[in-house]
Amino acid sequence: MTHSTKQRLIDAGLPLLLKHGYNDLGIQALLTATGTPKGSFYHHFRDKEDFALQVVAAYVGHVGPVLDACLTDEGRLPLARVRRFFEAMQQMYQDEGYLGCLLGGLGHELSGVSETFRRTIEACLNAIAERVADCLDESRRIGELPAACDARGLANVLVDCWEGAALRSRVQRSPAPLNAMLDFFLRSVTVD
Amino acid sequence: MTHSTKQRLIDAGLPLLLKHGYNDLGIQALLTATGTPKGSFYHHFRDKEDFALQVVAAYVGHVGPVLDACLTDEGRLPLARVRRFFEAMQQMYQDEGYLGCLLGGLGHELSGVSETFRRTIEACLNAIAERVADCLDESRRIGELPAACDARGLANVLVDCWEGAALRSRVQRSPAPLNAMLDFFLRSVTVD
Repeated sequence: MTHSTKQRLIDAGLPLLLKHGYNDLGIQALLTATGTPKGSFYHHFRDKEDFALQVVAAYVGHVGPVLDACLTDEGRLPLARVRRFFEAMQQMYQDEGYLGCLLGGLGHELSGVSETFRRTIEACLNAIAERVADCLDESRRIGELPAACDARGLANVLVDCWEGAALRSRVQRSPAPLNAMLDFFLRSVTVD
Repeated sequence: MTHSTKQRLIDAGLPLLLKHGYNDLGIQALLTATGTPKGSFYHHFRDKEDFALQVVAAYVGHVGPVLDACLTDEGRLPLARVRRFFEAMQQMYQDEGYLGCLLGGLGHELSGVSETFRRTIEACLNAIAERVADCLDESRRIGELPAACDARGLANVLVDCWEGAALRSRVQRSPAPLNAMLDFFLRSVTVD
């Protein structure tokens, strides 16, 4: 029961944080939306920062299995697996109304003033890029990518470009920037 | 005198908005930093939103001449002009301590809750992409880019990727993502 209250707050917090960002998120609105007494919130979370960090952890915990499912799918070539991962992210954005990426949003909003969030978001983006890098390196080894290419560098560029496309998608409320960026990137890296 | 007070508030607001974002920016901190009485602020600006929109206009007003200077420089080939523009942006980010792009920051923070900011940032990004598109189209016409390429589409992808690199640069406090993205993009589009 205690666990489910905490989980319910985190589940409700994710779309609210995605829409409002951190500073505009009212804890009272969260409590009202979930029918949770204030004392219960502060039983589970030290403060708003602790809550938001746990929402980020839940978000990453959701992306992890998607990375696993897409990037280890032996039924596809490695580059198609990478595409599949970002398409799955795009599907998630669609379900959320094209509000972009929570990591990018909080990274933008809070990196200027909070070392805690800056480091957390940095670590999350690095971890995703590392997973993509492993897959791109496999792609390089089987000859989909040029033998001399820097898979790790490419993976970081891809993650950054994706974050930018996710931002434009949020600003336009449209999937078009995501499709355009992914098509451009994958066409560019592939050996002719 | 009246004009200079308004200008001083806008000038001081830009680095504060870049660092803090919108919701974390305290008007009182701005007044203290600039030695401005509260009444004077509300003489010049309707409210905080009006102030932030005028800071965005000033930011765009600063980028415009950089676009002009870089993209119309007949002494360089068009693709080198595009590179020069983004290098000038990077120099600006460096001077600001690698805090990323104000348009991206406010676009991320506010697009979920404010149609006014969403549309404003959308228009600003579209306008920059249009200018870059004209230069890429010239690049296409002289054979730097493939004849069949979609200059407008490419320009939008470039602006989006740049925004993503600017975000990672903010999160890492480093120019590396900006360099890596720009090198990747320009290498990818160029005719061999």
